[in-house]
Amino acid sequence: MTLFTINDFNAALTSLPDPHADAIAAASARQAQLTKPAGSLARLEDLALFFAGWQGRERPAIDRGRALIFAGNHGVTAHGVSAFPPAVTAQMVANFQAGGAAINALAAAAGLDLRIVPIELDRPTADFTAAPAMTEAECMDAIAIGAASVEADLDLIVVGEMGIGNSTAAAALAARSFGGTASDWVGPGTGLDAEGIRRKVAVIDRALAFHADAPHTPIETLRRVGGREIAAIAGAVLRARQLGIPVLMDGFISCSALAPLAAAVPRITDHCIAGHCSAEPGHDRLLGHLGLDPLLRLGMRLGEGSGAAVAANILRSALAAHAGMATFAEAGVSGSE
Amino acid sequence: MTLFTINDFNAALTSLPDPHADAIAAASARQAQLTKPAGSLARLEDLALFFAGWQGRERPAIDRGRALIFAGNHGVTAHGVSAFPPAVTAQMVANFQAGGAAINALAAAAGLDLRIVPIELDRPTADFTAAPAMTEAECMDAIAIGAASVEADLDLIVVGEMGIGNSTAAAALAARSFGGTASDWVGPGTGLDAEGIRRKVAVIDRALAFHADAPHTPIETLRRVGGREIAAIAGAVLRARQLGIPVLMDGFISCSALAPLAAAVPRITDHCIAGHCSAEPGHDRLLGHLGLDPLLRLGMRLGEGSGAAVAANILRSALAAHAGMATFAEAGVSGSE
Repeated sequence: MTLFTINDFNAALTSLPDPHADAIAAASARQAQLTKPAGSLARLEDLALFFAGWQGRERPAIDRGRALIFAGNHGVTAHGVSAFPPAVTAQMVANFQAGGAAINALAAAAGLDLRIVPIELDRPTADFTAAPAMTEAECMDAIAIGAASVEADLDLIVVGEMGIGNSTAAAALAARSFGGTASDWVGPGTGLDAEGIRRKVAVIDRALAFHADAPHTPIETLRRVGGREIAAIAGAVLRARQLGIPVLMDGFISCSALAPLAAAVPRITDHCIAGHCSAEPGHDRLLGHLGLDPLLRLGMRLGEGSGAAVAANILRSALAAHAGMATFAEAGVSGSE
Repeated sequence: MTLFTINDFNAALTSLPDPHADAIAAASARQAQLTKPAGSLARLEDLALFFAGWQGRERPAIDRGRALIFAGNHGVTAHGVSAFPPAVTAQMVANFQAGGAAINALAAAAGLDLRIVPIELDRPTADFTAAPAMTEAECMDAIAIGAASVEADLDLIVVGEMGIGNSTAAAALAARSFGGTASDWVGPGTGLDAEGIRRKVAVIDRALAFHADAPHTPIETLRRVGGREIAAIAGAVLRARQLGIPVLMDGFISCSALAPLAAAVPRITDHCIAGHCSAEPGHDRLLGHLGLDPLLRLGMRLGEGSGAAVAANILRSALAAHAGMATFAEAGVSGSE
């Protein structure tokens, strides 16, 4: 099923596949026989079963893991909502492509292939305090780009983003999806001072008021207060679900892409893992609404998939233990008394 | 300086080297130039500076990281303080040596060399409710074995343990070092039920009372209520400090080896990182006393270095970003406004 139209998108969102119960049962039976006290690997065991379910095999693996970093520009930066100028989006994309950014080092350290997907950087979204950020067609184009970047032979995708101004869009998406005022969701982003944060709150409150009477459907919310890179993440996550590919989410902005979808269909996050909880104050709250328990809490706040790339190593550890350990019978070890 | 006598040990503990301030300054200056908002990699940046300081270089690395897993047996198991029979210690050592345990898979996944160091498994320590667990000579032998296992060319050691009954010793060490009753420090270990935990508390209270009037020096506490694998960890950590090698600690039992040392000389933990906080309830409390903030909280409770081995990947991520990222000048990226 393609994701080229709003009907496609809505049909996909309301016909989400479930994980493979038989593979989960087989993996669970295997876990019970491994040479360790039952349950002692805790979250690592949960992750092994999660991967078994989505990959549909007793011993899941990450042989073809890919980090997908989407980039877009935002008209709302005209209001001074970021500590960095909008030109930095393209500069950082060039840095990604040259191999010099954090995500290059972190993806390599986690054994992940890295794809950078800049989306019309020379066409920022509209200033969403006074218009929808994107037309329907622009939003669906971005979703389709995200979906098309998920190749069927991948066994994990890690999603991240780059876009000066996009923590403003993320806060607006979260507030419009799950309620609360702008100040419930706003933080310093890349490093705003207190005055900047006040300005950002006012901008978001204005945007929420402007779009208040529009339908609260996933696509309307994404296109009105989101951004191209954020819509692409939504498309990638939905496409991964159709393909049975687990998704490792990054920070506040990546997760905000799921907010409008999860507000309508909470189980959209069932194939997703939160790599970390960032320092951006809205992230913890957002993860709660998405039903995701982050693997790491290291205070990171860089975006570009960086926290998720660090967390990908934990997934590898979980699957290595699950696949590689001996059973009690194989090792000749006594069970508990 | 060798660690063969109590005088050697005490002299080493009171003349601990500091990290290299110049390397920390150089690493900090480098961090400030990397293409990210200042401070946005948070704990990863702290880890890079920590490694720079102990390794004494601007761009630290883990090329020769080794997991050292010490094993010993405990006379206190006669009181039914574990869910597993004592024979499992040797069985699990055989499993480590055959490559079938969690630590084999997790060390390999983290790129760590693995050394298993069983210490006189056929000679359990004495039942410490009625005698010191070890003589002075036995304790110093175990410390020397631990120290000797730390080769000078390593750039990271990960310490772990195996020993049926050793969470009882760990709780006794923690209580004798930092105060509190047995029940403040006792948990289910590998899986005791409520009745077993009550028995374990009573055993530890009896041991604490039996040894109450003995001197509270590091060696007296280690030898009276510790164990061979625990004393070996103390020796390894102290030797690593002499050599400027960072140490990644594992769970409650590994950390309990530092309790008697840190009660006397708190800065013994300055070159240590807590890999994780385990599900064993005393671990969080113990980490607080040791001044260590764990990298992971995944609910793990297996021991054998498993949590630390997972956390070693985070260290690699931190050092990869620190060494591999471009500076703003190299990448042509604008700084914050």
